[in-house]
Amino acid sequence: MDAGTLWDEFEAKTREIRDLIAVSDLLQWDQETYMPPRGEAARARHLSLLKSRTHAALCDERLGRLLDDVRPRDDAERATVRLVRRERDRAVKVPARLVKELAETQGHAVEHWKRARAAKRFEDFRPWLARLVALRREQADCIGHAGERYDALLEAYEPGMTVARLQQVLGRLRDGLVPLVAQIAARPAPRTDFLHADAWDVDAQWLVCLDVIRAMGFDFEAGRLDRSVHPFSVGMVPSDVRLTTRLRRDDGASALFSALHEAGHGLYEQGLPAEGTWVGTAASMGLHESQSRLWENFVGRSRAFWTHWFPKLRERFPHALAGVGPEEWWQAVNCVRPSLVRVDADEATYNLHILARFELELDLLRGTLDVADLPAAWNAKYERYLGLRPPDDAVGVMQDIHWAWGELGYFPTYSLGNVYAATLVKAMEKAVPGMWKSVAAGDLLPVRDWLRARIHSRGHLVDSEELVRSVTGSVLDERDLLAYLREKYLSK
Amino acid sequence: MDAGTLWDEFEAKTREIRDLIAVSDLLQWDQETYMPPRGEAARARHLSLLKSRTHAALCDERLGRLLDDVRPRDDAERATVRLVRRERDRAVKVPARLVKELAETQGHAVEHWKRARAAKRFEDFRPWLARLVALRREQADCIGHAGERYDALLEAYEPGMTVARLQQVLGRLRDGLVPLVAQIAARPAPRTDFLHADAWDVDAQWLVCLDVIRAMGFDFEAGRLDRSVHPFSVGMVPSDVRLTTRLRRDDGASALFSALHEAGHGLYEQGLPAEGTWVGTAASMGLHESQSRLWENFVGRSRAFWTHWFPKLRERFPHALAGVGPEEWWQAVNCVRPSLVRVDADEATYNLHILARFELELDLLRGTLDVADLPAAWNAKYERYLGLRPPDDAVGVMQDIHWAWGELGYFPTYSLGNVYAATLVKAMEKAVPGMWKSVAAGDLLPVRDWLRARIHSRGHLVDSEELVRSVTGSVLDERDLLAYLREKYLSK
Repeated sequence: MDAGTLWDEFEAKTREIRDLIAVSDLLQWDQETYMPPRGEAARARHLSLLKSRTHAALCDERLGRLLDDVRPRDDAERATVRLVRRERDRAVKVPARLVKELAETQGHAVEHWKRARAAKRFEDFRPWLARLVALRREQADCIGHAGERYDALLEAYEPGMTVARLQQVLGRLRDGLVPLVAQIAARPAPRTDFLHADAWDVDAQWLVCLDVIRAMGFDFEAGRLDRSVHPFSVGMVPSDVRLTTRLRRDDGASALFSALHEAGHGLYEQGLPAEGTWVGTAASMGLHESQSRLWENFVGRSRAFWTHWFPKLRERFPHALAGVGPEEWWQAVNCVRPSLVRVDADEATYNLHILARFELELDLLRGTLDVADLPAAWNAKYERYLGLRPPDDAVGVMQDIHWAWGELGYFPTYSLGNVYAATLVKAMEKAVPGMWKSVAAGDLLPVRDWLRARIHSRGHLVDSEELVRSVTGSVLDERDLLAYLREKYLSK
Repeated sequence: MDAGTLWDEFEAKTREIRDLIAVSDLLQWDQETYMPPRGEAARARHLSLLKSRTHAALCDERLGRLLDDVRPRDDAERATVRLVRRERDRAVKVPARLVKELAETQGHAVEHWKRARAAKRFEDFRPWLARLVALRREQADCIGHAGERYDALLEAYEPGMTVARLQQVLGRLRDGLVPLVAQIAARPAPRTDFLHADAWDVDAQWLVCLDVIRAMGFDFEAGRLDRSVHPFSVGMVPSDVRLTTRLRRDDGASALFSALHEAGHGLYEQGLPAEGTWVGTAASMGLHESQSRLWENFVGRSRAFWTHWFPKLRERFPHALAGVGPEEWWQAVNCVRPSLVRVDADEATYNLHILARFELELDLLRGTLDVADLPAAWNAKYERYLGLRPPDDAVGVMQDIHWAWGELGYFPTYSLGNVYAATLVKAMEKAVPGMWKSVAAGDLLPVRDWLRARIHSRGHLVDSEELVRSVTGSVLDERDLLAYLREKYLSK
């Protein structure tokens, strides 16, 4: 076969794998948005089947031979070969039996987690979590590592990242944040009561979310917004990207900031190149989170943003915002205070929630912490980093769905996202001097376009740290984030 | 391996095939309900991939050996083996290349059909339809037949049915209907103007649909109702069944009768046994249509039904129904008049629309009619059976999506459904003497329960005609339908 024919076969095979993943994404989106309750059991089976098929397709021997034989002709093709090889090398080491067992255990664990959380009984979730940790340890050992199991799992979310590097960067971030948060918290707390009044018409919130997302440049011909209990986003393909937000009458900020966050993810997906190829995927989950956090916090919680949007908000919510001025609003949505629940945390303390999880996961995978001792260890971390002790496990160790999904190694990507976002914003401010003026005038497209040209459209040509370095000149460095937080919260 | 282990392997393999089909169903549902417009191309590719995988799984050699080796232990298992063998025998005869080409051509053809229909230009759709007809002819020849290609395609929708039998039954139905429709049409037309006034609040229509479907016993924990341009339903599994209806301010009846129709399909799906097995599927598309048409027409267009529901309707639509009494309403929703568009046709003329399509499809597959001559042939049939000539091809030969999907052989199942429904209602009236009294009192569950016990819960234990015969004592016979129509429309 000539080189072109080989490449076509390789491309068709890898496209099929991406397509199987996209189909799984749709099933998961549907599960959280429109699936009727009794659909759960069949859906878990369908997802498990698709995961098995995806794994089998990666392990296909013909794909292995093609990887050896194809001759990539440019950077994009070389990147695709490198990425597929990495993915396949990981896949072939994991037996199909383990893939299936993980998928099935995840399906059941989520159900047990939901019930255990509602009943505030960690005991009911414990055996499932213990099983998942055992399976993930086994998986990490199959994949292989140089002594640190966590590295083997982290690689799936953040290619090129290691625990050793994470511990440095996140350790310094923690050391900077703990005193910084204490300093901010020592200042008088802003008024936030109006945010939680039972006064926020959900239909009006919905319209505001749509307005803001549209202004960000999200393409509604190639995506949509729906409601779900937990906001999330999936980009099946750049031409079909789904966002969700949650709407609550007693919360004036959550829907909007969730929408900003998810649309940040969504713009990344819509801006990816070469649909259906491996190089046309996001460079890492950390970089993905940088996009969501950049829009949610760096843009969405800026004074410039509210210069334009606060008057619009007041039009939509004349009652809920009666007597509230733009500065009071801005203060309220930037209230930094230690809290128990990650998803409600402000942009400064958020990283301490992540630190706690990262360190606990590390101990679980190393085997130095038993799942039975996890609640006590969780509570001790919260006491140490945030000065708070959860009253029960529902708002403590069981608050997140991630572990019930078996996702160990994912959490650090949230903090990596915050770190990357700070560095990207710094670079953007230099490259686009009129940026904040545009934001203040309601024009968000300069932000989107800069990110699109430099991040989104590059796909996974190189790993995230190298990509960010090529754009900003900086490697992963927590100092930009710490400087941003100090400047924002302590400068006056 | 012992018999039990063999059976488990067989069951797991066949369940995977059913699961792949269910996943395709979800993708199709999403395509018609929530998918953003630019998602089309990727969706067509995903559906084509799933169809190829389904075909490959059916052709799997191991499945062939299992079919030879398994020892079914009861009627249900024997039925499953028979059904899987039939499905596999058909599949192995069709090359994977043809399956893929059909799926891809269908994806493109639908897009071209939409555009051609909007532009009223059959010429733009003609090459795609010609290609689909050629591919379906090829497929039929691969599968094999005794001289009539149509039989090979019909078998997929209506196992056990043949063109020879269809021509007899539908021929007699046509011969009875043409004069019957003329007789009814000679009578004074009822008032229908209010049905088409721009006065039907869509939110109120939505609530009525939900009320009626709930009263039918549709389980909303295991299903849902959404909006779409063309009403349809899919039962991925009995615990996840999706219905849609369309809502238009200038149509007071269409949403409701569509909802009744689709919920009739949905109740069948929710009532099927043994989820994930082959015996746990509907016995045929004709029997499926019997369920939808039974609810839509025999129940939903009865006087008894409106005894209970008309007062509720008038509460919801005080303006639209001002000055309209229950008898006027009943007359309006039972207006029999020849018309051009199948989906708007009344229960009597509907079958003449089907007859025209069946006969044209037969000629296309035999090769006695060229696609280029199809519009003229269509118009001639309409002239002959309905006395009407389409002003353009959009309301003529291009009105249905089925041919753009490549579905040739499907249409007759609609008329089989009407025929079966009449026979089932006749049997139900005998078996449940208080049936119409219950319906008049708003209690629709006796109807659902009778159908559930006798039809739905039997799955595909036997083919549809045998199933109907075991329930009613009658084989497929158009006389029940003709008698019902005569009695309803000519008795006074």
